[in-house]
Amino acid sequence: MLEKKIRMGELYDFYGQLLTSRQQEFMELYYQHDLSLGEIAEKFAVSRQAVYDNLRRSEELLKEYEAKLKLLAKNKELRKKIKLVKELVEGLDCDPEKRQEIITLIDQLLDG
Amino acid sequence: MLEKKIRMGELYDFYGQLLTSRQQEFMELYYQHDLSLGEIAEKFAVSRQAVYDNLRRSEELLKEYEAKLKLLAKNKELRKKIKLVKELVEGLDCDPEKRQEIITLIDQLLDG
Repeated sequence: MLEKKIRMGELYDFYGQLLTSRQQEFMELYYQHDLSLGEIAEKFAVSRQAVYDNLRRSEELLKEYEAKLKLLAKNKELRKKIKLVKELVEGLDCDPEKRQEIITLIDQLLDG
Repeated sequence: MLEKKIRMGELYDFYGQLLTSRQQEFMELYYQHDLSLGEIAEKFAVSRQAVYDNLRRSEELLKEYEAKLKLLAKNKELRKKIKLVKELVEGLDCDPEKRQEIITLIDQLLDG
């Protein structure tokens, strides 16, 4: 379940803006704020089943976007390579200040 | 016009898979293979206006996807930073073989 949460969080970060605002609200409450289906249902005065269906639909859509665009997978691959560049730079025998400047830049890039 | 072609090419690379297969066909013929509206119309036995409308719709959709997701803009920003890392590495006074190894890796990463 935790794995699914992480996966959905990643997909939501990439493609969430393509969902309707209601879908976005439910996804955020369920996956980011950890509300239960029942709690969301109560908050919006809808049935638990309606919340469940809405979330399933959003999850399907997010998976479809990634299946088509693969932008999350490509981004992960890119980050892996950037981390390798960082490791190689860390191992260079050179002016430590200049090396640190590069490492700081790479860290910013990985955070952004 | 060339600028628009490049922009549409970039957007199509990122989000083209979200278009219908007909929309993709028209976009590729017009923007990548440089066919005229008339040539595409003839090829598909449809009106020139139909091709025009189809392309305008695709262009709008691609722009909408980018307006919402900004993944192309983020990718460009990332690439700019990676190029800066490369320049800094090129300027390092260190073992030239190790430096070249890193530069090659960065180049691969920028190509991919």
